[in-house]
Amino acid sequence: MTSPEGSFAGPNPAPASRVVALCGGVGGAKLALGLESVLAQGQLTIGVNTGDDFEFLGLCISPDLDTVLYTLAGLSDPVRGWGRCDESWNFMAALEQLGGENWFSLGDRDLALHVERTRRLRAGETLSAVTGDLARRFGLRAEVLPMTDQPVHTLIHTAEGALPFQDYFVKLRCAPCVTDISFSGAAEASANPALIGALADPKLSAVVICPSNPFLSIDPILAVPGVRAALERTPAPIVVVSPIVGGRAVKGPTAKIMGELGLAVNSKMIAAHYAGLIDGMVIDDSDAADSEHLGVPAHVTRTLMRTAGDKCKLAGAVLSFARALDEGAMPRHTENA
Amino acid sequence: MTSPEGSFAGPNPAPASRVVALCGGVGGAKLALGLESVLAQGQLTIGVNTGDDFEFLGLCISPDLDTVLYTLAGLSDPVRGWGRCDESWNFMAALEQLGGENWFSLGDRDLALHVERTRRLRAGETLSAVTGDLARRFGLRAEVLPMTDQPVHTLIHTAEGALPFQDYFVKLRCAPCVTDISFSGAAEASANPALIGALADPKLSAVVICPSNPFLSIDPILAVPGVRAALERTPAPIVVVSPIVGGRAVKGPTAKIMGELGLAVNSKMIAAHYAGLIDGMVIDDSDAADSEHLGVPAHVTRTLMRTAGDKCKLAGAVLSFARALDEGAMPRHTENA
Repeated sequence: MTSPEGSFAGPNPAPASRVVALCGGVGGAKLALGLESVLAQGQLTIGVNTGDDFEFLGLCISPDLDTVLYTLAGLSDPVRGWGRCDESWNFMAALEQLGGENWFSLGDRDLALHVERTRRLRAGETLSAVTGDLARRFGLRAEVLPMTDQPVHTLIHTAEGALPFQDYFVKLRCAPCVTDISFSGAAEASANPALIGALADPKLSAVVICPSNPFLSIDPILAVPGVRAALERTPAPIVVVSPIVGGRAVKGPTAKIMGELGLAVNSKMIAAHYAGLIDGMVIDDSDAADSEHLGVPAHVTRTLMRTAGDKCKLAGAVLSFARALDEGAMPRHTENA
Repeated sequence: MTSPEGSFAGPNPAPASRVVALCGGVGGAKLALGLESVLAQGQLTIGVNTGDDFEFLGLCISPDLDTVLYTLAGLSDPVRGWGRCDESWNFMAALEQLGGENWFSLGDRDLALHVERTRRLRAGETLSAVTGDLARRFGLRAEVLPMTDQPVHTLIHTAEGALPFQDYFVKLRCAPCVTDISFSGAAEASANPALIGALADPKLSAVVICPSNPFLSIDPILAVPGVRAALERTPAPIVVVSPIVGGRAVKGPTAKIMGELGLAVNSKMIAAHYAGLIDGMVIDDSDAADSEHLGVPAHVTRTLMRTAGDKCKLAGAVLSFARALDEGAMPRHTENA
């Protein structure tokens, strides 16, 4: 859709400007936290992957939503990389004594979120409504949105057959060789209307695809009908932060999966994956040599986020880069891409 | 039903003899523990009230079954009187932060039992099957049976209307004045076949009604069709241990409820409540004056159970009393009572 003149933020994003971030779990949530820190209340909308959601012990678990909520609330465990800080494990210990399933660990405090969400979902509330309420309870300034309220299940196709994501990721520790990935239920799902609304907001000044796994965390979001089209329609620049640093994935199975799918593990391949959708890419200093071969403008900076300062600095750099793209300092994606 | 000669245990109960105990929560579970201690593997079957069962946070809670399981497993908290020992409360603290319901407290370890049972019930298993498996996991020598696998809900009728039991007992701390008690669903429920089978077992040598609240813990069991008839049919002596000590209830709202229902708080009234069903009653030393006015033979002993020794001693006294009744040393209930 052609952008009417003046329908989005000008040279300096007005306080009323809006940013949409798309992300999965840990790595993406770090940048989401940075973005929340540098943006004002109500400016940031985060669309989160729910393809990893599953049922465990009869409880509805949404790993990526939980990681985003906990990270933004300052409750995530920085060492473990999942779950809550100051956690205790007495529930799991007692469950083992009862012979219950224990391949997925739920901390005692973490469990409160799963029990409460499951209760409310079973009572007929939507995942969006429950997530929104949890975000308010945690005092978040950002809007956190599941990509859809319908069930979507990421399936990992391997030589041993198709595996539900958590079976592949947690139970089998990513050991099986991946041949394909699919998103069961995605075609029948409806995109979260609030996410589509945010992407259509005339005040939208940037879309940030966080440094999450493109295959496991971002593709499920793009697979939900309406999301890709809404991204293609927005006049706001779409910037992806590469999850590759120095030819390696920072965390998780991204590099292993890319290798198994016959893809080179570098930022060029990430850019190729998003070709036609993105307007620019932020890559790490260590991959600076790739910057001329991405097919879109690149911004080279340090993308590893260890401290709170790292997260804010990267968020600021990403937003500045988007602004530069928007101002025409750099070429934009074609409107019909 | 007339007892065929030699169909139940002789003067000294053979190792193969069998005892059925009926009980509710704390007080009853103490005697159940004593009985388990003095009887051999497979000799004791405990029929437990499930009228207090309720759903909380979407979890199926069975307070009396849990108390019996934890008490017999040596896992109950001796000070608090409910839940598990060595408990932590991080789940509830986190739940409060999320705005979840917190009028009923679930400890982190205790929660494992509720989550696992709920999962299995929702997967189609019966409460009996789940309870039996938990009892085995806890290494119990006794058979623990819910009175029924169907839902029965004890309703407390008060001036403020009919209240679900836990609302009356926990949320309102027994404050409302009780006008009546009913057992919703009892008439439509089927008694646990294993309980009916145990009561019909030719090897049955005694039925012990534990010192539980007659109105709240034992009456729901008797309200399930088939239980009272099975008790009336058994040739084995039925002995009740009075929950009254020195004209007061040891624990819980028994005395308050008896007063509100216009009943005198003494063992005579307990005997009158069970009239026609029981063959003998065990009362506390402090109520010895009542012993001649119960309508059934009495055994007077110390019924307060503080130590493990107290529980075993009382259990032994109850079984000896039942044996004496059985040997005809004391008058029996009429077979058609």
